[in-house]
Amino acid sequence: MDNPFTSLMNPRSIAIVGASNNPMKMGTMHALSILKDGFDGKLFPVHPTEKVILGLPAYQKVEDIPETPDLAIFVIPAAAVPGLLEDFGKKGTRRAIIITAGFREVGDDGRDLEDKINSIAEKYQIRFIGPNCMGIINTEISLNTTVASLTEKPGYLGFISQSGTYVTQSLPYLRKHGIRFSKAISVGNEANMNTIDALEYLGEDSQTRAIALYIEGIRDIPRFLEVARRITPHKPVIAQYVGGSKAGARSGLSHTGAMAGPAHLYEGLFRQAGILQIHSVEDLYGHGWTLATQPRLKGNRLGVLTNSGGPGTAMANTCEMGGFEVPPFSASLQEKIKPLIPPHAPSGNPVDITFNLNLDVLATEIPRLVMESGEVDAIVLHGAFRYGFIEAIYPHIKELANNAPIEDILSMMPSDFESPGKLPHDYGIPMTISSFFDSDDDFTRMYHENDVPHFDAPEKTARAMVSMLQYHQVTLRQPYTQPELPTADPEASAILQKALKEKRNALDEHDAKKLLKLYGIPVPDEYIANSEDEAIHSAEGAGFPVVMKALHHDILHKTEKGLIGLNISSAEEVRQTYRLLQERAGMDVPILIYHMVEGSREFMAGTVRQQGFGPAVLFGLGGIFTEGLRDTAFRVAPLSLHEAEEMLTDIRGWRLLGEFRNMPPVDMDALARLIQQLSFIPAMHPEISEIDCNPVIIEGSRPVAVDALIVLANSDR
Amino acid sequence: MDNPFTSLMNPRSIAIVGASNNPMKMGTMHALSILKDGFDGKLFPVHPTEKVILGLPAYQKVEDIPETPDLAIFVIPAAAVPGLLEDFGKKGTRRAIIITAGFREVGDDGRDLEDKINSIAEKYQIRFIGPNCMGIINTEISLNTTVASLTEKPGYLGFISQSGTYVTQSLPYLRKHGIRFSKAISVGNEANMNTIDALEYLGEDSQTRAIALYIEGIRDIPRFLEVARRITPHKPVIAQYVGGSKAGARSGLSHTGAMAGPAHLYEGLFRQAGILQIHSVEDLYGHGWTLATQPRLKGNRLGVLTNSGGPGTAMANTCEMGGFEVPPFSASLQEKIKPLIPPHAPSGNPVDITFNLNLDVLATEIPRLVMESGEVDAIVLHGAFRYGFIEAIYPHIKELANNAPIEDILSMMPSDFESPGKLPHDYGIPMTISSFFDSDDDFTRMYHENDVPHFDAPEKTARAMVSMLQYHQVTLRQPYTQPELPTADPEASAILQKALKEKRNALDEHDAKKLLKLYGIPVPDEYIANSEDEAIHSAEGAGFPVVMKALHHDILHKTEKGLIGLNISSAEEVRQTYRLLQERAGMDVPILIYHMVEGSREFMAGTVRQQGFGPAVLFGLGGIFTEGLRDTAFRVAPLSLHEAEEMLTDIRGWRLLGEFRNMPPVDMDALARLIQQLSFIPAMHPEISEIDCNPVIIEGSRPVAVDALIVLANSDR
Repeated sequence: MDNPFTSLMNPRSIAIVGASNNPMKMGTMHALSILKDGFDGKLFPVHPTEKVILGLPAYQKVEDIPETPDLAIFVIPAAAVPGLLEDFGKKGTRRAIIITAGFREVGDDGRDLEDKINSIAEKYQIRFIGPNCMGIINTEISLNTTVASLTEKPGYLGFISQSGTYVTQSLPYLRKHGIRFSKAISVGNEANMNTIDALEYLGEDSQTRAIALYIEGIRDIPRFLEVARRITPHKPVIAQYVGGSKAGARSGLSHTGAMAGPAHLYEGLFRQAGILQIHSVEDLYGHGWTLATQPRLKGNRLGVLTNSGGPGTAMANTCEMGGFEVPPFSASLQEKIKPLIPPHAPSGNPVDITFNLNLDVLATEIPRLVMESGEVDAIVLHGAFRYGFIEAIYPHIKELANNAPIEDILSMMPSDFESPGKLPHDYGIPMTISSFFDSDDDFTRMYHENDVPHFDAPEKTARAMVSMLQYHQVTLRQPYTQPELPTADPEASAILQKALKEKRNALDEHDAKKLLKLYGIPVPDEYIANSEDEAIHSAEGAGFPVVMKALHHDILHKTEKGLIGLNISSAEEVRQTYRLLQERAGMDVPILIYHMVEGSREFMAGTVRQQGFGPAVLFGLGGIFTEGLRDTAFRVAPLSLHEAEEMLTDIRGWRLLGEFRNMPPVDMDALARLIQQLSFIPAMHPEISEIDCNPVIIEGSRPVAVDALIVLANSDR
Repeated sequence: MDNPFTSLMNPRSIAIVGASNNPMKMGTMHALSILKDGFDGKLFPVHPTEKVILGLPAYQKVEDIPETPDLAIFVIPAAAVPGLLEDFGKKGTRRAIIITAGFREVGDDGRDLEDKINSIAEKYQIRFIGPNCMGIINTEISLNTTVASLTEKPGYLGFISQSGTYVTQSLPYLRKHGIRFSKAISVGNEANMNTIDALEYLGEDSQTRAIALYIEGIRDIPRFLEVARRITPHKPVIAQYVGGSKAGARSGLSHTGAMAGPAHLYEGLFRQAGILQIHSVEDLYGHGWTLATQPRLKGNRLGVLTNSGGPGTAMANTCEMGGFEVPPFSASLQEKIKPLIPPHAPSGNPVDITFNLNLDVLATEIPRLVMESGEVDAIVLHGAFRYGFIEAIYPHIKELANNAPIEDILSMMPSDFESPGKLPHDYGIPMTISSFFDSDDDFTRMYHENDVPHFDAPEKTARAMVSMLQYHQVTLRQPYTQPELPTADPEASAILQKALKEKRNALDEHDAKKLLKLYGIPVPDEYIANSEDEAIHSAEGAGFPVVMKALHHDILHKTEKGLIGLNISSAEEVRQTYRLLQERAGMDVPILIYHMVEGSREFMAGTVRQQGFGPAVLFGLGGIFTEGLRDTAFRVAPLSLHEAEEMLTDIRGWRLLGEFRNMPPVDMDALARLIQQLSFIPAMHPEISEIDCNPVIIEGSRPVAVDALIVLANSDR
């Protein structure tokens, strides 16, 4: 099936309702953008009274338009949208952009109105973006339907935003930073076409070399993941998520009606999808542009070139903290560099040329030597500027220079403006540039024109390169292969059905582990005893020392209630413990007995269902560290085995998985399989709302789930 | 004693060596800055041949200068510095700025030269900054000795930098961002006057309202801490440290010869000192300017005002993640706001005015209502702009507007440029501003002129406000009181002397704990047994269960070598364990016996001496989590009790200190005292290089150091 964005982004004719001849009205601004920014298709204004709008014939009714427009744009009061949408449906138009706000984001009335336009769209097979959006930009055909003007040549960064501002208010900002869209899409309320459709479209779009996402909430997490997984191995995707806090979620809801989820779930989703997560729109643009323009990294060796120690040190420090190495240059490379810089200036990486009026040394000669050397995979460079600096000192020197214009002084610093910007592509080595001078400076402009990312602070320049490294790591991941889900085990279903019938909130521990065992999750061999003698017999069968637990589906938090006996080593202790547990439980309860699993490393694994997110699987430190450290990684269920493996080392305490204080390394395959199996269960058993295996003790190197809780979906818990 | 910076920053007469009439020479640029930027004292150029320099009489020799200059500035080759410094010494000049590079930062030769100028300075009681620096800026007397021009009025941000670039190359950047220095000091190699002197000076300087530090390494950590502690309760200090990585440390060394220390030690130092740490020079400027200009925060309730949902959501999210609350506004406040904004626009915080040509609503009326309400302690605001946006749409609308100039169109949007910038000070409520429009925009310029910080991205605006909150938390700390160090205990000294005499690397565990006990650190009561029978007797004395350990000062890593027996419960077990330990030790060793301390929470505490840093104390998760989680906080020793308390909750696992799974809360006072006592030991016993108490087990609520290692300073370990 074709992605509906393909036709929406490439109309040959457009109708707009809401434009007039008043230049300060929104509708007019949208129309002017279409008219003035180079779109060579047709534009048909629709207006109840005007005959001519912006020099074009205007049509009183949709039916009067002399042909069927490919796309209709609405910039009219919300109440008027349904009627006109119906008119366009009848006319045969199948794509629309609804700029108008006042739908779901404003509450119940708006939600009804949104439902109404949805059903009209369905009736006529209309696909639309919005409502409550800013429209689209397609630089490939010079089409701009937003309110700001777009004067730049086509670019490479694809942008999808749940905020219209980021494709309108920010256009002048982007121009000054040399950043250019391929396509930009403001998705608004996503009543019909959404972020995921847009992502899929840009994933296939050959003009788009990297994709940036501004997200307040994703509606269909599994499909988002599926689409992103296909794109990220060959095209970088970078995302900002702002719905993870209470205030962010509330604000997003009133902005575009987006349903947010907790920050940690989105963090896991992005990691799983191979999407780089950043935390500001500035980085979304700047890192997105870097990913879109620079040759792919091949390793993590970084060269740092500078005209000043401070920025050089800061860039080296930031990049090393982000995973780069900054290797000292070889003696032979340094021998080539030394003649170009002052006698005592550092040549060993960073190279610091210090004060030097010959800018070609810094901008061209040294980077070329370093790129040719094969000793680095990337370069960050600070201090290539000319006009900006001369302008800054001009008030001081102009008298001495007989008031010569700045341009004459510049001619004393002849510079090559051809080579520096071409270096990254000539050598296939990415480069980012730092200086405190913006596009007023001629070097800055040169870098902009050559698509070499330029930042106004050394650390930003460095962090953009760190994003290149993070994407490099994404490309090194094993390809995703869809796991084959087992079919639901009839015995497992029977356990669940029985519990549901008995209106339980949760399975008892024994049933929970039985169910897990059916799916191959390692649990202890367990015995149930209903008398002291049975208990002793069971304990002897299990082998001392044993664990004894009061077993009842209503008993949670056994540890806190003293309903667990650990390390029980003799028949006599079994007998005493049996009595104690009965007494503490305050009722006759069966006793669960198993051979005690010993190991000092305790993890936890489980599944949750979160509103607005769907089933997720989690893994983290267990036992008392569960709440104490909250060191937990999340993923969307189900997982491939490799995804489960990646998740293991996502926790801060990943070193505990290795060889450790006389303990053997954890059997990573067994642990990954345990998590993968858990991740399958929510899909097979929708009647389960939550699984909590805690602790999963590492016995020797082997993980064993010694406690398990399975909460049922009809439960309030 | 007067701070030498007071006179260095306020000379009435300056001599400069190295200026000529060539405007492209460094020395000339420095002189031009002094001449052209408004300094009204005298300037005496010294030059071997020229008679007139920059219109001033030049002197061939220092002795020819008609009076004694207060300050001498050197911009000449390194080799010429000592002779001329001596000349100025003879002339009576007592302050100097040595711009010249090529000293310690270039290696041994440079180090010799630096020693030479140091001894000349000492001989003549000259205090100087540099070498290898860019000089100073004192806007209070319009004195600028750097190479870039400074055209702005005096500001409030004090800046101290180990990179000259950050007070020269960046001046045009600062101008465009509306940021103004009070004083700026480039300290270079710090051969004589250093960052700490500068910090002390700016701490006392009434023009300076916040201080920003760019640091590659601090030479005297205890003095830095002492000075910062005095300043931060009443004046914000913010710092960037770039020496924490391998590459950062190497680069800093070749830049200014700075000796760096690990990032985590500096992080602890800054927290202890009440200094806010940031990670880019951009934040150093932007957050520094915010702290310097905005009224102090009084709480953490934030109002978010915007003309667009995306930036509003992003600001709310960033601020909440940083510790702010974004409380929904009261019904009565919302009733006042609603008439000002479109019917369905959000009024509940964030307030989103959406598209509106009346900018006074966003910039003045709503912030005033919100400030008057008493419902917030701070405001972040996105979207007050006019010229920038009109300029952006002008290419589209100019024809419709009959090609009227932009200014005519602006007159259709009359705006109050008086009130908005005054709001923070009128109401004593801090405010930061976001828009994508730079100083080309008239609103941006208005905010600049009124010292309201303006950022070109919503998240940056939000993060600057988070720095305000962090400083607010600094001001809430208990005042620092200097702890009284105990005198060295003679018995402790005797233990150490004996071990040193025996040329041991470390104390044995028993001696180590004996020493710690002498300083009030809780350790188990211990017994030493030299035979099986003694062992049984001791165990019975200690009370079962006991721990038995092979005791020898050369035995480290006892756990790994199986030289510890835990949970020994009977005389027979004591006997078996005794034999086993002897066998494993492979020699006759005494056995250490104590009653087993039980508890599931294990921490670690200790002291280290790190080159370039001095004695530090550490606290963190212990046991197997020491290396597995590396969750450790550091501080400079010795600590006040309150500093020790603050340190406890600095670790990620701080929740483990509270009431937890049926365990009582940890006795924080006892734990803080344990750490404080440890922090005293390095000062009393310089013969100790390292103390490692791991684990410190929490028994009930009480911490007990059950293992201890004390490494001696003469050891290679």
